[in-house]
Amino acid sequence: MSSPGMDEASSLQLCRLMLPDDANFMGNVHGGIILKMIEEAGSIIGTRHCNTQNGDRCLAALVRVEKTEFLSPVFIGEVVHVSAEITYTSKHSLEVQVKVIAENILTGAKKLANKAALWYVPCSLQNVDKVMEVPPIKYASPEKEEEGRKRYEAQKIGRMETKARVEEPMPLRPNLEDAPQERHTVGFSQSSLIHLVGSSDCTVVDFVYGGVAMKLMDEVAGIVAARHCGTNIVTASVDAINFHCKIRKGCVVTVTGRLTFVSNRSMEIEVLVDADSLVDRQTGKYRAVSAFFTFISLDKENKPLNVPPLKIEGDDEQKRFEEGKSRYLQNKTRRLAEKERQQ
Amino acid sequence: MSSPGMDEASSLQLCRLMLPDDANFMGNVHGGIILKMIEEAGSIIGTRHCNTQNGDRCLAALVRVEKTEFLSPVFIGEVVHVSAEITYTSKHSLEVQVKVIAENILTGAKKLANKAALWYVPCSLQNVDKVMEVPPIKYASPEKEEEGRKRYEAQKIGRMETKARVEEPMPLRPNLEDAPQERHTVGFSQSSLIHLVGSSDCTVVDFVYGGVAMKLMDEVAGIVAARHCGTNIVTASVDAINFHCKIRKGCVVTVTGRLTFVSNRSMEIEVLVDADSLVDRQTGKYRAVSAFFTFISLDKENKPLNVPPLKIEGDDEQKRFEEGKSRYLQNKTRRLAEKERQQ
Amino acid sequence: MSSPGMDEASSLQLCRLMLPDDANFMGNVHGGIILKMIEEAGSIIGTRHCNTQNGDRCLAALVRVEKTEFLSPVFIGEVVHVSAEITYTSKHSLEVQVKVIAENILTGAKKLANKAALWYVPCSLQNVDKVMEVPPIKYASPEKEEEGRKRYEAQKIGRMETKARVEEPMPLRPNLEDAPQERHTVGFSQSSLIHLVGSSDCTVVDFVYGGVAMKLMDEVAGIVAARHCGTNIVTASVDAINFHCKIRKGCVVTVTGRLTFVSNRSMEIEVLVDADSLVDRQTGKYRAVSAFFTFISLDKENKPLNVPPLKIEGDDEQKRFEEGKSRYLQNKTRRLAEKERQQ
Repeated sequence: MSSPGMDEASSLQLCRLMLPDDANFMGNVHGGIILKMIEEAGSIIGTRHCNTQNGDRCLAALVRVEKTEFLSPVFIGEVVHVSAEITYTSKHSLEVQVKVIAENILTGAKKLANKAALWYVPCSLQNVDKVMEVPPIKYASPEKEEEGRKRYEAQKIGRMETKARVEEPMPLRPNLEDAPQERHTVGFSQSSLIHLVGSSDCTVVDFVYGGVAMKLMDEVAGIVAARHCGTNIVTASVDAINFHCKIRKGCVVTVTGRLTFVSNRSMEIEVLVDADSLVDRQTGKYRAVSAFFTFISLDKENKPLNVPPLKIEGDDEQKRFEEGKSRYLQNKTRRLAEKERQQ
Repeated sequence: MSSPGMDEASSLQLCRLMLPDDANFMGNVHGGIILKMIEEAGSIIGTRHCNTQNGDRCLAALVRVEKTEFLSPVFIGEVVHVSAEITYTSKHSLEVQVKVIAENILTGAKKLANKAALWYVPCSLQNVDKVMEVPPIKYASPEKEEEGRKRYEAQKIGRMETKARVEEPMPLRPNLEDAPQERHTVGFSQSSLIHLVGSSDCTVVDFVYGGVAMKLMDEVAGIVAARHCGTNIVTASVDAINFHCKIRKGCVVTVTGRLTFVSNRSMEIEVLVDADSLVDRQTGKYRAVSAFFTFISLDKENKPLNVPPLKIEGDDEQKRFEEGKSRYLQNKTRRLAEKERQQ
Repeated sequence: MSSPGMDEASSLQLCRLMLPDDANFMGNVHGGIILKMIEEAGSIIGTRHCNTQNGDRCLAALVRVEKTEFLSPVFIGEVVHVSAEITYTSKHSLEVQVKVIAENILTGAKKLANKAALWYVPCSLQNVDKVMEVPPIKYASPEKEEEGRKRYEAQKIGRMETKARVEEPMPLRPNLEDAPQERHTVGFSQSSLIHLVGSSDCTVVDFVYGGVAMKLMDEVAGIVAARHCGTNIVTASVDAINFHCKIRKGCVVTVTGRLTFVSNRSMEIEVLVDADSLVDRQTGKYRAVSAFFTFISLDKENKPLNVPPLKIEGDDEQKRFEEGKSRYLQNKTRRLAEKERQQ
């Protein structure tokens, strides 16, 4: 009996060379490229695991990514290694933990770029809306299983809490020329992009890979951050992302980002993804994904810069700012506690 | 009642960050990338509008792009915004007007990069060769409707006139080593590229997006222009493009460009697109698209350079040169008239 | 009657502008990009030829690429021209010879970048596992036909000989952090990448283009070589590549490269491609392709550098080193003989 994470079926590594199109004008690889690779690894290992059972063949569909931090910048020409391992299974879902290491293949230097945890649900190939059962994994110890069960319960609560955001109206996209001219307001940097879902974005059963959606989300958040600062910006972290609904081939997705909170050194950007079937009027427009991205501003030596304060206008912006501030303070407290624990 | 162009269904904005692969070695974004984004916006808004009716679900297929000018160069790292609006509907076609604005997201500077008008026809998803009816839009005034009707009649005549080009034989592609060695002849710079149509080039009903074809056309025209000048070249304008026939998945497209006319400061390149089904011998090879691209040559400060004169050989080349010259003079007259009107 | 290679059906040219994503950080276009273009040309001309007959429509599937050398480096901004010609047909297979010329479109300078020979087999669109008959071509002379027959017999033997490699176990991929830390060992530079096959990688009948596989193989071999040398490396040649089995859409491919032999100025890297259907457990994992890539190391002026010697550990590595050395010496002898013949 092999221990979990060691046998073929429950661990996986993938790697790719970072190309110019993966990075911004300073050579910093976009966070969205890393998120897409993380999800690709999770989707492969999840799908492989769920097909070790009898019954319908199935695909693992991403339903949630836990809060994740970008620990070191990655550059063009480096090789990114993503290793994934199944760490918990419930009856209908599984958790994949992923580690991202960036390697300078000329010097051999390696650095930890990211760690993430993703939740998948197996969908039948015969009927994508039918959720299959997940074969159980073996745990190294009862403690490991218990820890996994706690993470499972926590994410269930987390998903419940963000249900509200499904209902939150998509902010209106002002015409570029009607957009507010005053710098550092929320309206000034708010941005949207629209993407027509093609076959290269989709799984074999024609819904969009979670990683493709996250790449678009990071792209729009980066535009918001660059507009606010006018400097080189990079993704610092992403709050838990929930995938409320599948996005199908042929849909148009509208990805909108707006600043919610700004500290001295960071910007929080809310990103909402709405999907709209062009040809099926009955489905209508629906909220498919939502998340908060945190960006920081860097100088030419990749040292952090101060971020211009956000000019708040109206009660809604004030409310979102306060909520963002409380997320910011919670994260700060959590990070300090972790540091102390490690000492 | 919302006025046309203001409600969700009849206006649309999309944007995208320009990446290294979108540009030439001087950082100038290829005109073909802009044309592809323009068409993506038109195709989304057109498809959405045509599905507001009962009956078969349908896709808007591009049939014509009116003459369009590239007003300012766009660079890597800028965000390109495309806004589209339905401005006229006939029984079986609709006109989309599109505006392209390039934004330097670091400085906030914006410039108008392009304005274009596109004509679409709705094709049934059940049978792509069946043209559906277009739901009428509401006009801001009877004058607006009348102006639209005039544009509609004009494009009908325009499409008729270019029917001749459907029959024009594809110039023979000389083997690279047999190609004429004398610089500045038509034969010296003539170029072809061949592309095998894959699923990422196609709509959900497996015909090629108009924007994909225009991107290939701009690419080959750029190679012709660079061969003639040996300098940094950019797309200045594109004459009306007519899409005579659909190109289907699995086809091979041959895109050929050759110089027809050269003025002091510009080159006119005729581009012909022929499609060929590899597996269906009955369809055979057919002319799918044709257009004239105008390129200019730029120095390192993006200032226009003189273009070497074209060495004409034979009567056919002379005839095409004269036709090109008359198009060039017509455009010049038209531009001067417009300038005067604006003063 | 047109001579073979001159009429439309049996010759073909394609070209493409090289973009930043096609090249490494020194601007050298990856060998894999060239191999992919070569195969695209072969696949188009082969498919076109095989559909000139009656019976099922079919696709030409790549089964073998003969040993090929990269004669000159290609750079970003150059236009690559690939010309292909059918040079031999047996009952069930055909040979395509391909020439690659890189052109600096600013100066007009041209150089021969590559010459290759590929073998294709026509597969019925109705049933991809059914091999069709190939319509015979006409030869310029009986001698030409006889030479082709000899090449055909030689490749049959070559394919037989490499059958053994189908059985060779895929080397274990050590976790990046467990990887050997001692530089210049085989284990230090061994690398794998994993790719989930999507629709843009596939033909209309949903198996992977041979060119897509070769591009991945070159990518992993390049990572191995860069890890070993820590310098700018380029593909010098590729030994005969055999495509043992088709790779289907939805599969995961694992591409692994490891050093087998190192001379003063070159590195030989064995690359193995294993395919694994995520959803179909019965097929299991199978060896799809295998080949030897040779890389060289270049300084900033594109002059060859010495390669660090390989530290051999254990009998298996020693055996592979000896086999690699004998391939190296054979190739050297062959090249010298050719040079003499040409003088």
